[in-house]
Amino acid sequence: MADKKLGVWMVGGCGNVATTAILGLVGLQKQLAPTTGLVTELREFAALPLVPWGDLVVGGHDIREPNLRATAGRLANEQVVPRELVEACSSELEQIDASIKPGIAYKAGKAIRALADVPVDDDATTAPRELISRLQNDLKTFIEANDLRGLVVMNVASTEPPLEAELPDRWEAFDELLNQPGADIPASTLYAVAALELGLPFVNFTPSAGANFSAVEELTKRKKICHAGHDGKTGETLMKTVLAPLFAERNLEVLSWVGHNIFGNLDGRILDNPENRAAKVATKDRVVGGTLGYDPQTLVSIEYIESLGDWKTAWDHIHFRGFLGTLMTLQFTWQGCDSALAAPLVLDLVRLADVASRAGNVGALTPLAAFFKHPLGTDCHHFAKQHARLLDWVRVTSEQMAC
Amino acid sequence: MADKKLGVWMVGGCGNVATTAILGLVGLQKQLAPTTGLVTELREFAALPLVPWGDLVVGGHDIREPNLRATAGRLANEQVVPRELVEACSSELEQIDASIKPGIAYKAGKAIRALADVPVDDDATTAPRELISRLQNDLKTFIEANDLRGLVVMNVASTEPPLEAELPDRWEAFDELLNQPGADIPASTLYAVAALELGLPFVNFTPSAGANFSAVEELTKRKKICHAGHDGKTGETLMKTVLAPLFAERNLEVLSWVGHNIFGNLDGRILDNPENRAAKVATKDRVVGGTLGYDPQTLVSIEYIESLGDWKTAWDHIHFRGFLGTLMTLQFTWQGCDSALAAPLVLDLVRLADVASRAGNVGALTPLAAFFKHPLGTDCHHFAKQHARLLDWVRVTSEQMAC
Amino acid sequence: MADKKLGVWMVGGCGNVATTAILGLVGLQKQLAPTTGLVTELREFAALPLVPWGDLVVGGHDIREPNLRATAGRLANEQVVPRELVEACSSELEQIDASIKPGIAYKAGKAIRALADVPVDDDATTAPRELISRLQNDLKTFIEANDLRGLVVMNVASTEPPLEAELPDRWEAFDELLNQPGADIPASTLYAVAALELGLPFVNFTPSAGANFSAVEELTKRKKICHAGHDGKTGETLMKTVLAPLFAERNLEVLSWVGHNIFGNLDGRILDNPENRAAKVATKDRVVGGTLGYDPQTLVSIEYIESLGDWKTAWDHIHFRGFLGTLMTLQFTWQGCDSALAAPLVLDLVRLADVASRAGNVGALTPLAAFFKHPLGTDCHHFAKQHARLLDWVRVTSEQMAC
Amino acid sequence: MADKKLGVWMVGGCGNVATTAILGLVGLQKQLAPTTGLVTELREFAALPLVPWGDLVVGGHDIREPNLRATAGRLANEQVVPRELVEACSSELEQIDASIKPGIAYKAGKAIRALADVPVDDDATTAPRELISRLQNDLKTFIEANDLRGLVVMNVASTEPPLEAELPDRWEAFDELLNQPGADIPASTLYAVAALELGLPFVNFTPSAGANFSAVEELTKRKKICHAGHDGKTGETLMKTVLAPLFAERNLEVLSWVGHNIFGNLDGRILDNPENRAAKVATKDRVVGGTLGYDPQTLVSIEYIESLGDWKTAWDHIHFRGFLGTLMTLQFTWQGCDSALAAPLVLDLVRLADVASRAGNVGALTPLAAFFKHPLGTDCHHFAKQHARLLDWVRVTSEQMAC
Repeated sequence: MADKKLGVWMVGGCGNVATTAILGLVGLQKQLAPTTGLVTELREFAALPLVPWGDLVVGGHDIREPNLRATAGRLANEQVVPRELVEACSSELEQIDASIKPGIAYKAGKAIRALADVPVDDDATTAPRELISRLQNDLKTFIEANDLRGLVVMNVASTEPPLEAELPDRWEAFDELLNQPGADIPASTLYAVAALELGLPFVNFTPSAGANFSAVEELTKRKKICHAGHDGKTGETLMKTVLAPLFAERNLEVLSWVGHNIFGNLDGRILDNPENRAAKVATKDRVVGGTLGYDPQTLVSIEYIESLGDWKTAWDHIHFRGFLGTLMTLQFTWQGCDSALAAPLVLDLVRLADVASRAGNVGALTPLAAFFKHPLGTDCHHFAKQHARLLDWVRVTSEQMAC
Repeated sequence: MADKKLGVWMVGGCGNVATTAILGLVGLQKQLAPTTGLVTELREFAALPLVPWGDLVVGGHDIREPNLRATAGRLANEQVVPRELVEACSSELEQIDASIKPGIAYKAGKAIRALADVPVDDDATTAPRELISRLQNDLKTFIEANDLRGLVVMNVASTEPPLEAELPDRWEAFDELLNQPGADIPASTLYAVAALELGLPFVNFTPSAGANFSAVEELTKRKKICHAGHDGKTGETLMKTVLAPLFAERNLEVLSWVGHNIFGNLDGRILDNPENRAAKVATKDRVVGGTLGYDPQTLVSIEYIESLGDWKTAWDHIHFRGFLGTLMTLQFTWQGCDSALAAPLVLDLVRLADVASRAGNVGALTPLAAFFKHPLGTDCHHFAKQHARLLDWVRVTSEQMAC
Repeated sequence: MADKKLGVWMVGGCGNVATTAILGLVGLQKQLAPTTGLVTELREFAALPLVPWGDLVVGGHDIREPNLRATAGRLANEQVVPRELVEACSSELEQIDASIKPGIAYKAGKAIRALADVPVDDDATTAPRELISRLQNDLKTFIEANDLRGLVVMNVASTEPPLEAELPDRWEAFDELLNQPGADIPASTLYAVAALELGLPFVNFTPSAGANFSAVEELTKRKKICHAGHDGKTGETLMKTVLAPLFAERNLEVLSWVGHNIFGNLDGRILDNPENRAAKVATKDRVVGGTLGYDPQTLVSIEYIESLGDWKTAWDHIHFRGFLGTLMTLQFTWQGCDSALAAPLVLDLVRLADVASRAGNVGALTPLAAFFKHPLGTDCHHFAKQHARLLDWVRVTSEQMAC
Repeated sequence: MADKKLGVWMVGGCGNVATTAILGLVGLQKQLAPTTGLVTELREFAALPLVPWGDLVVGGHDIREPNLRATAGRLANEQVVPRELVEACSSELEQIDASIKPGIAYKAGKAIRALADVPVDDDATTAPRELISRLQNDLKTFIEANDLRGLVVMNVASTEPPLEAELPDRWEAFDELLNQPGADIPASTLYAVAALELGLPFVNFTPSAGANFSAVEELTKRKKICHAGHDGKTGETLMKTVLAPLFAERNLEVLSWVGHNIFGNLDGRILDNPENRAAKVATKDRVVGGTLGYDPQTLVSIEYIESLGDWKTAWDHIHFRGFLGTLMTLQFTWQGCDSALAAPLVLDLVRLADVASRAGNVGALTPLAAFFKHPLGTDCHHFAKQHARLLDWVRVTSEQMAC
């Protein structure tokens, strides 16, 4: 089994984040890409038995026709990835297209369904269980075809609108609901269930619901499998979880924290839709009060500005009170490339979820909180503490697995 | 002794930082000022036997004629402190003037000597030891007159030019040199020696040399007394020690870090003098490379812009490389009031140096690194780690002193 | 008549802008305030027979109980006006309170009506004409009581929601509609009609409808009186009308222009209400395309952030394309005090409307376009051209009136 | 003659600005580049008989070995120019290399001389006149070889240190001095004299001295030829000349104006040398006081930050006082690509100097002030007025030449 490879299954495999991650992975495999931005390449991770880049095989689902090479070419135009790398990896990208299967858009909302160029399931008449079975067939086929030792399922698809219905707390009732045509359970959750039922780790890099249900958590316990999420922390929110502790630890009172985000990629276009945006703003807005221990006035906006492409600019304005009531201000402007920030974390999470799974971790992987805007299983948003917690887990797990 | 009070001795007692700290202290004593900005008022410090604000008595040295009320009035004009508080505390401020004694400016450089409106010692013919004796007389007189249980000496005077001569490594030789007229040892170090020889804790809130000599460290061991320093970390550098770890922990490569600081108070005017600025820029510039483990191009400027008064604006531009070589930028603008940021830390350090002294700590207080740009006795510039280290010390010391 | 004074009638006389303008005027009359910020004090205006500050007498309408001294005191707390000036002018402010009469809130929307602490007219059963008569009585009484040579009516009240109904184009039909109870004509327009029918110049410093109707324009022709508006150009929009021409004149293509405005005064609270905000955003958003000659993507937000008080921070992000397609960015942050920017323009406009009226100008005063976000009677938003046009008018009018 | 072409002679033909301008020109000739950024392509210039892009032929001088293709390739790496355009124009670029002749570095300072990879003249023993003769031979040979109707000489070479010696005011004495070996006259002036003596228009796009001498101005009168300069206004200074008038025209008092510029191209490296920087800072710093009519505190810094390449970031902080003394702040960040901003202006100036020359303009071309940081022959730094002046000249000259 040591010789077998590990699968990486990208849900939303045609998107910018998936494409950048896949291109980067191929680049790493061909030793054409440096390891900048990869947390698991820090020396503190050296003792952890991480899967080598060369042992990863990529497949995925998407509701769009895959053309990774074309997408990567567009990203090169937008100065997200180097054109030379795209050219050097083009035959590999073309081959991976063949492993990206038609996905689902069940209860994913109008904005997402409008993107589909493969036929998608009917929201009213389809039973979720049918879709799960189809997804599981794809996963099993991929594992067999590539003789894999395992597979990590990674959700990097567009953000779904928040769920309106309440879902059953226990797995049994939840499982039954899956048989009901039109049951109000979103695609991201069906992907999660598909993976977890097969004993495969699931990582939710998006603000969509995914595995965030106690019933699904129960399923992970039954199957003794782990999962991680949710909503990758890449830019403005990352800054918040670094800066809010500063104010708390200096006893400076934050009066208001305003954050405006502008960007122009597909994510931005989907989030320009108010129902999809709601989920995102909620995870972005939670961290300030969570860290400070009180709730200053906050404002978070996300706006689609087409000319920016994959480049996100965030402007944050923090108004705070110091000694003797003096009012002061910190402003920052973050000009980052969304996909280039997200992609290495996606690759890191594949490796870490794989190690966690092999180490026997079950349920939500709270030691991975540093990677997420809304980490499952913990209320801690303090980045330095999250990172320290991660390094503790790395030490313990390294020792455990060395035995 | 529990009924006796503690002295706070401000070296540079007429400056903006001292005045703001003294006004704040009087405000706290009269319950007219909130505790915002005071680190020792965080709940994590509750178990530490900190001196109550009401038990502090203020004196100091300065080379200017003291007029705390007038200085506080000017700070109110500049919107650094509330005018109502100045008015409510004016009689206390006037009383404290009487405890601010003529200071020294020995080897403090032309820019500082030009500020003096009390007669200052001759740089060529005075022996440092004479000055130390005079300072010690002032300290002893103050302790006796106020029947104090102790005294913390706090340097908040203007920044001296960096020292050119090398000084002896051992205390014996250093002590001898103190007798030599014109010996090249700056005022801040004479203040430190004066305090430490008397077994009084010394805190250096400035970039001046103070106690930063191995000979003086040896003196602290002999006298079994502690000291802390140096250069209070209040604004732009504080931000650096919070943000640089973010880049390190996400494996993002910092290519350049530019920081421009503009402000218009006396500190700024003194620092506009290139020789005085050199010391400051050195401590500000050290932290980025120290945290990252490699040295990106850095640039730090400090410029005197009169119209800004005590308000400092820093603009930092951080250029970094992410996954697949993508270049990104973080910029921040910090608009803070220097004295309002420094003053509560000065009061915190008085309380902490007092506890450390009572707990028997000897030598440089490395657990207080979070307060300084250039912490003595440690290379760690990672703010969150420094703060965690401080909280560890608080726990251990609380337990030790509870016995 | 040369010895008679001129009245200034502030609609919204209790608001921040009115209070700052009134305080400033009293300060100018008592020679306690400098002329900074007053356009009419530039040397180019020296030959224009402007009313001296000492010859102005203030009255007004408001739906709140007047207490100018208390409002000015609050503005001093928020560092909008100097406390000493408030104290020096307090008896004058108290006297002016007596000349601020109960206003109207007819069709002014819920947010504004909720501010009223004087009884306001019923939106359904009152006929606009009744209200106009009441307002005109107030104006006439004030003129007589103070033996004034004239009166300029200045609207600085809160922004009304945009009008939904279409109103008659001709004055006759419009006039008839005024008799119809519940007719959909907002308060700002009733104030305008009240003034203009009496032959008094009306200035609309707000985005509300005011005199912006062809029927009202017809009225001005009949009465041979002038008016000016609308929406004072004080901060972010002023910047837009200065910067957009730069891009046009250098043939640089603006791709997107994003502007976020945050502030915390009453105006902000009213504008936080979507229906009131609509009017404001419309006037702010028009200038970029108007100047460039094409429509880049634009975004304007106005958000109420309580801690900022009267201080507005605007962040603008301008993305533009240069030679050979190179994408570049200009960002600016404007930190201004709304009332301190608006108040001198209000005083300038009183003087200029008075001169225009004496010079026989009729209808919309297009030479005053530089003062407004949405100048009546012209499409030119190019600030430098507007200012040049103003100076031309100053020259011509100075000569005309010198005869 | 109408069929003959016009020569463009780039002094510093191998630099970033020249390379971008040449690449852009070839792109325009091949209809591969849009006209964005070219002022002369605005519709207001349509009636002016501008030379068509296709009628321009490029040559130049440089002290480095020409390799325009390689330089353009590097600029494509730095995202200054599109890679596809470089590839499409590579054979043209290679051909132009042959027309770039060895330049001079006489009295150009150490930093510039260190760049030379062709042999340069000795500063002590060479007589300027020898160098001028050599340059003139190159110009004449180029004109003959290409059968040109004329030639515009454009200085885009690195910035020289400011001149220390005083030079004669009259041409006769100046001319004599040219024969004196080691005479202290910098290279840029020798290029200017070489061109003007031949009756060819000279444009100085740099802060170097060039034709800025009354003796040289006298030469232009004798030869009845025109020249323009100096120091192209592309970014931060352009912003200053747009924003300073705003403060003046609103009677807002600027208290301080701080501008920090960071960038990493060769220009930056040369300007990192204090003596070269002095010339640049002087022209950048003059505009604020020049426009306002009084001198607020100003600070201009230019710093070389290697990682930024050709991308310049400027941060400006403007502190100003409004009505009743309220202090406010405007900050802007300009992120522009130096060469992409300069190159189209260089092409515009070639066309405009050619028209001016054909129209018989003599001496310094003050109507072109809008293009320069330090326009010759006028003190007006108000951009909108400069642009209006330019359009006036365009109208008058169009009419004159239509006759």
